[in-house]
Amino acid sequence: MNFSSKILEEAVNQVSQLPGIGKRTALRLVLHLMRQPEQNTDLLSDALLKMRHDLQFCKKCHNVSDTDLCEICASNSRDETIVCVVEDIRDVMAIENTSQYRGLYHVLGGKISPMDGVGPQDLKVGSLVRRVKEDGVKEIIFALSPTIEGDTTNFYIFKQLDGLQINTSTIARGIAVGDELEFADEVTLGRSILHRVPYENSLKN
Amino acid sequence: MNFSSKILEEAVNQVSQLPGIGKRTALRLVLHLMRQPEQNTDLLSDALLKMRHDLQFCKKCHNVSDTDLCEICASNSRDETIVCVVEDIRDVMAIENTSQYRGLYHVLGGKISPMDGVGPQDLKVGSLVRRVKEDGVKEIIFALSPTIEGDTTNFYIFKQLDGLQINTSTIARGIAVGDELEFADEVTLGRSILHRVPYENSLKN
Repeated sequence: MNFSSKILEEAVNQVSQLPGIGKRTALRLVLHLMRQPEQNTDLLSDALLKMRHDLQFCKKCHNVSDTDLCEICASNSRDETIVCVVEDIRDVMAIENTSQYRGLYHVLGGKISPMDGVGPQDLKVGSLVRRVKEDGVKEIIFALSPTIEGDTTNFYIFKQLDGLQINTSTIARGIAVGDELEFADEVTLGRSILHRVPYENSLKN
Repeated sequence: MNFSSKILEEAVNQVSQLPGIGKRTALRLVLHLMRQPEQNTDLLSDALLKMRHDLQFCKKCHNVSDTDLCEICASNSRDETIVCVVEDIRDVMAIENTSQYRGLYHVLGGKISPMDGVGPQDLKVGSLVRRVKEDGVKEIIFALSPTIEGDTTNFYIFKQLDGLQINTSTIARGIAVGDELEFADEVTLGRSILHRVPYENSLKN
């Protein structure tokens, strides 16, 4: 693209660094900002800078937080003996939206993936083991994505917990509510039969 | 969405103000910035602020420019007697990319659209008429989009130029190079027959 202004070009280049945003989309976004009041760009810029520099992480579960302990860890009404292990904060938000879980979380910050250069040392595994040893955690729920990387990470953590008095579980894999059986993949359908639940239990929700 | 941090929520809200970006995409972009070095967010923020506050417009053609006169208007090698009238700066970039046009431009900043509350007074029509009167412009090429709004704008400008010694033309509408005839709409196909060009001319390019 031929820009008639270096300032415009730099803005478009910076915006197009974001994932999934190409040069054309970046130009559209920048021109949108240009047509809006200057205040809008100031607010956007402020919010991004504040997010990047001032955002803190909960000392206990590594969830994002404006305080030392996040709202969930600081709450009195949560069950501190159960910890759900997730990949990132989006998973915390997704599970919180279900209103079905009353325990705490542990945000790993990724999953073991040699292809992407992510090893166990890049994840918050050590602090999880410490929580199990020191905080009286009785059950750990693995809620990572059902991929090779997710399974590897689950297994690595499971090995690290070896010898500790702890129950471990993974979230149930099965046919999604509302889905047609005929369109489900074989692995999922197979698991949903292997891990079938008593009919009375399925009525509870 | 339940955010565990007001700072994160504000950043996501601001990013999701951009056109075509919803809350989920905004969260993905913000989390991406969080995983990148702090410097990346600083550069993005700087570029946006600079764009919004320091960007200038060419005094002659209203194209974006870092100087009083844009590169195109300031160039000696362009034909100052031809002016191509376009809607916004993206159209200038598109025409410049063809390398087929050696005249100047005039960026209207939109088109007459009562539905969107855009009237002739919101467009740079006055300065176009002034250019015709004072700068020795001999031909005006209308290159607005072929919509009702575009046609209305063309006609409005045409009326404003009434009585002045000036040639006006519009860019050719026809079948796009590489397109199949059978898939062309009737209006375009009809125009392409009405405005057919001598075969020798079509060989030139």
